[in-house]
Amino acid sequence: VNAPLGTWIDGIPGDQLPADDRGLQYGDGLFETLLVRGGRPRFLDAHLARLTLGCERLSISFAVTPAFRAEIATICTMATSGADPCILKIVITRGSAVRRGYAADGGETARRILSLWPTAPLAEGLRAGVGLLPVPERCADNAALGGIKHLSRLENVLALGKAQRADTFDALMTGADGNLVSGAMSNVFLVRAGRVLTPPVDRAGVAGVLRGVVLRECAALGIDAAVQALSLADLQAADEVFITNARIGVVPVRRVGEHQFRMDVITRRLASHIEALDA
Amino acid sequence: VNAPLGTWIDGIPGDQLPADDRGLQYGDGLFETLLVRGGRPRFLDAHLARLTLGCERLSISFAVTPAFRAEIATICTMATSGADPCILKIVITRGSAVRRGYAADGGETARRILSLWPTAPLAEGLRAGVGLLPVPERCADNAALGGIKHLSRLENVLALGKAQRADTFDALMTGADGNLVSGAMSNVFLVRAGRVLTPPVDRAGVAGVLRGVVLRECAALGIDAAVQALSLADLQAADEVFITNARIGVVPVRRVGEHQFRMDVITRRLASHIEALDA
Repeated sequence: VNAPLGTWIDGIPGDQLPADDRGLQYGDGLFETLLVRGGRPRFLDAHLARLTLGCERLSISFAVTPAFRAEIATICTMATSGADPCILKIVITRGSAVRRGYAADGGETARRILSLWPTAPLAEGLRAGVGLLPVPERCADNAALGGIKHLSRLENVLALGKAQRADTFDALMTGADGNLVSGAMSNVFLVRAGRVLTPPVDRAGVAGVLRGVVLRECAALGIDAAVQALSLADLQAADEVFITNARIGVVPVRRVGEHQFRMDVITRRLASHIEALDA
Repeated sequence: VNAPLGTWIDGIPGDQLPADDRGLQYGDGLFETLLVRGGRPRFLDAHLARLTLGCERLSISFAVTPAFRAEIATICTMATSGADPCILKIVITRGSAVRRGYAADGGETARRILSLWPTAPLAEGLRAGVGLLPVPERCADNAALGGIKHLSRLENVLALGKAQRADTFDALMTGADGNLVSGAMSNVFLVRAGRVLTPPVDRAGVAGVLRGVVLRECAALGIDAAVQALSLADLQAADEVFITNARIGVVPVRRVGEHQFRMDVITRRLASHIEALDA
């Protein structure tokens, strides 16, 4: 069992919450998964910005205050002695239901659940590259949910389960229009003639923090990068493919279905550049 | 605050559960909402059959045993004195996470959360008919999730919120192909030239227990009924429209967007017939 090093609910150590929490009842909430190195969460501002956007989209009354930042800093500092790197998971739910039923009342008090998890440094096998399994299901097309990291993740649970049963690292998910969205637990990029491209995630999928870092750092490195609609055929015709998430950083993709990829020049350049960032 | 009359977790009175529950972390679980009349849950076998189907689809190891049925009976009997009708909500989650991350381990122990809620008898205003607001979002197209009542319900939360802010009883949701799926908290039917029609829910939406009862009782009443693909235009061209769920039974729809419906002959016949069933 991969147990947390600690859990804090609304700032208090403890791991029990009321069953009437709307996060449990309806998947009504948000989360962030941060990599903590040397007691410091990487790309914290970007994670908190996405969390804030999510709260706005869902009308959850939760603000990132200096006190909340101090709570994160304290937890990361005190719990990482001897566990480096580790993962900080932040869950913000709409809170306990004011009344039964899907519709939010508006009078709920948001609940925050922070937990710290052990994790291993990135395995060599992972660094060498992974496979993706395209799955036929189409993600919901919903501008209110696209990009944010909400708690209604059963699509991802099932897609990733399928991929892992096929001995593949992640699934490759498509949107209502049949175009690519993302992996089940990662964002996906391709490299074509020196350009880095990634699909939009404004109607489905999650706008990963590492995805944002890649787009920003491409500019810093003088690599042309863009967000544009991409099909599975575009991906399979690419020179390089890679995925990103907060835990793994930038990882090359070696296989999508039956299609293989050998090149990784730009992928490795981005991976080592981003891993070395002091953030 | 609309608080539960009681909550039981894995058979023990209490309303606290561990924060590592995958129902909370990923919306990884199922639920049922049953109307309890005179201490007896209506259509219990149909609810438990859908729950069992959901567990199979999600590979959640939970079986409906005689002991579980006895637990339901005991809770309904002991808690309904003075609160009739009421609502029994059953939540089955995959249980506490064995490891962090979307993918289930397979070694989890399912958790059951039963809660009993007060409810009012159906208001006259509701009996007289309600409005539906068509929303533009497209539900996910996913054969594994279609029809089951899973916990990843943020689409429904947002759609219903939109409808209620527009002073409408429920939203009207469509699938990836643009055809009708259901209400956010109900199933939808139309009546056209004496035939009762409802959209398929095998790729999105929930196969409501009352939906099943309507299809079955139409046969018993000699009313032709069928499941078929339906568009918003089909609905607006219908003679009658109605919605169903476990709490409200069969309720006429008077308005879909700007379109009004006056007829309700078959709707009322079904509503009173089903309300009177000894189940």
